[in-house]
Amino acid sequence: MVGSLNGSSMDLIQNAEPLPEEIDPKAMPLDLNGESDGGRGGGGKSRQIVLGRNVHTSCFEISEPEDDDEVTGEREAYMAGVLARYRKSLLERTKHHLGYPYNLDFDYGALGQLQHFSINNLGDPFIESNYGVHSRQFEVGVLDWFARLWELERNEYWGYITNCGTEGNLHGILVGREVFPDGILYASKESHYSVFKAARMYRMDCVKVGTLMSGEIDCADFGSKLLLNKEKPAIINVNIGTTVKGAVDDLDMVIETLEKNGFKDRFYIHCDGALFGLMMPFVKRAPKVSFKKPIGSVSVSGHKFVGCPMPCGVQITRLKHINTLSSNVEYLASRDATIMGSRNGHAPLFLWNRCNAQ
Amino acid sequence: MVGSLNGSSMDLIQNAEPLPEEIDPKAMPLDLNGESDGGRGGGGKSRQIVLGRNVHTSCFEISEPEDDDEVTGEREAYMAGVLARYRKSLLERTKHHLGYPYNLDFDYGALGQLQHFSINNLGDPFIESNYGVHSRQFEVGVLDWFARLWELERNEYWGYITNCGTEGNLHGILVGREVFPDGILYASKESHYSVFKAARMYRMDCVKVGTLMSGEIDCADFGSKLLLNKEKPAIINVNIGTTVKGAVDDLDMVIETLEKNGFKDRFYIHCDGALFGLMMPFVKRAPKVSFKKPIGSVSVSGHKFVGCPMPCGVQITRLKHINTLSSNVEYLASRDATIMGSRNGHAPLFLWNRCNAQ
Repeated sequence: MVGSLNGSSMDLIQNAEPLPEEIDPKAMPLDLNGESDGGRGGGGKSRQIVLGRNVHTSCFEISEPEDDDEVTGEREAYMAGVLARYRKSLLERTKHHLGYPYNLDFDYGALGQLQHFSINNLGDPFIESNYGVHSRQFEVGVLDWFARLWELERNEYWGYITNCGTEGNLHGILVGREVFPDGILYASKESHYSVFKAARMYRMDCVKVGTLMSGEIDCADFGSKLLLNKEKPAIINVNIGTTVKGAVDDLDMVIETLEKNGFKDRFYIHCDGALFGLMMPFVKRAPKVSFKKPIGSVSVSGHKFVGCPMPCGVQITRLKHINTLSSNVEYLASRDATIMGSRNGHAPLFLWNRCNAQ
Repeated sequence: MVGSLNGSSMDLIQNAEPLPEEIDPKAMPLDLNGESDGGRGGGGKSRQIVLGRNVHTSCFEISEPEDDDEVTGEREAYMAGVLARYRKSLLERTKHHLGYPYNLDFDYGALGQLQHFSINNLGDPFIESNYGVHSRQFEVGVLDWFARLWELERNEYWGYITNCGTEGNLHGILVGREVFPDGILYASKESHYSVFKAARMYRMDCVKVGTLMSGEIDCADFGSKLLLNKEKPAIINVNIGTTVKGAVDDLDMVIETLEKNGFKDRFYIHCDGALFGLMMPFVKRAPKVSFKKPIGSVSVSGHKFVGCPMPCGVQITRLKHINTLSSNVEYLASRDATIMGSRNGHAPLFLWNRCNAQ
């Protein structure tokens, strides 16, 4: 595992720079039917979108098919041309992701033969699905690995492979709210925006906590804000690597602050390890993420550090919290404590392969 | 497009039967290190999970690596063996999905060369991302196509390619709640469970409406339930194909019921087309889904009908609703009105390819 977390993984994140060679849609035969606007009003240019360029002007349109073989041939040539140019632009872009695409190439040997299948892990990974084409057996293997990493017994955890880091945060904070329905959400102001999005989605009161110069949560400020809301339980988002500064909140001090302010057994901690969660066990002097401490859930992003070619993440929580969730009629009816329901079944295969191979 | 929606697509859904040849994990050399339990407590058997077999007993474990070339060789052989057997079981399973996997094979020709790239469409598809390896230009092409299908002008819609049908429902209902914060959610009892999950997640009052024998929403019951809550706006989930019976709610009658009970301009309709949404334009006598009617959003599932090999869906809503959403500080900070943030960048390529090629 350690071998994979070298400098090139960091380059991956830092080198998300703009494309050197932009695709030029004007160089494409966009219009097969000879109509410049396709009768669609052409209002694209007046469209107002907050921040950034209007993607309509550079997108690849879809034309309606014709009952004409010659046109069909042209269409296929057009599509192949678009895709070939797109591939070239991807090659340009990923040149700057040192190490990363090559690792993927290497792995595809074993997994390539599975790419053709439509694999979907529907619903709870621990409940048998009647949709046959799944990869739960690999998913649970990966979850066991992460539960072991974070020191939670196999019979005491629940989790699933998410579609992305954000889904992990949405899930962890939802579990916290179900455990403490009147809890207040605390998160440092450098937390990922999905944490504040969750507060709004879930209609939770949310208190922003200040940070130190390093970007870590300021526990003095946290303590004083806790005292303003002593009567309500606390749900805390702890960052294991913030998006901007990579700061790691001091988990031990967060717990100490909660306990000394009278919140013992009245708090739920979600650890957002979207960025650094996988590195932490190997970084010295950072507080260890472990379920031996009173934390409720941990999430990480799989595609950012393990080199999975599709967005995904891992979410691990305590089984007892999910049982609380499942006692609710609506959740029980769904037999599904995940957020999304459908999950890409290829992601577990990649994670399984990476975790095994490193 | 019509050509792709033949009987075999239906077989896909109905043939989600159990596997003829189950993978037997006991036939695998699961334990490379000679430890039967790996020191993990082995508590798996006592684990209580609602409904269904414990997947731990059949999952593929991940073993820790050894600094030993010979063991590494064995590990590679083991992994290759597991994946080869898994592939065989997938082939068995998908034999029953008539037509479906062959369509995929056909398409892979053009798209296969892109499989190696880690493509991620982060955030709002209409806002430029600083993550270079994306497929927004294809995504917006697909969205334009669907907006046109549902008769919404290019400068009046907003949307994105979701991770699955559930995400579309979660998004549509959230938009409805943001438009009418004190609105009550109405949904027929045969609605997909994600609708009721959304109500709980978002802390919305939810009223279940009865159905006719066909599975369609019972508008008489709907009307009487509306009258019990006349003072609050209505947010309605309309099913364009229920999960169990494939019933299509009568959209026109739902709108009529709302208007004649005094809800004019005080309702938001989300159309859940997870199953049949793509077929509807081609099915006679069903009420047409169109933004020329007073609906707020439509979602469909891409992998179920268009033959996309990963879970995905399409969500289209009115731009003015997203602008309402974006005026909120938290959402603005995120510059992202999607639910998940990260999205699989291959899905737009498949959808683009399918929509263009059919």
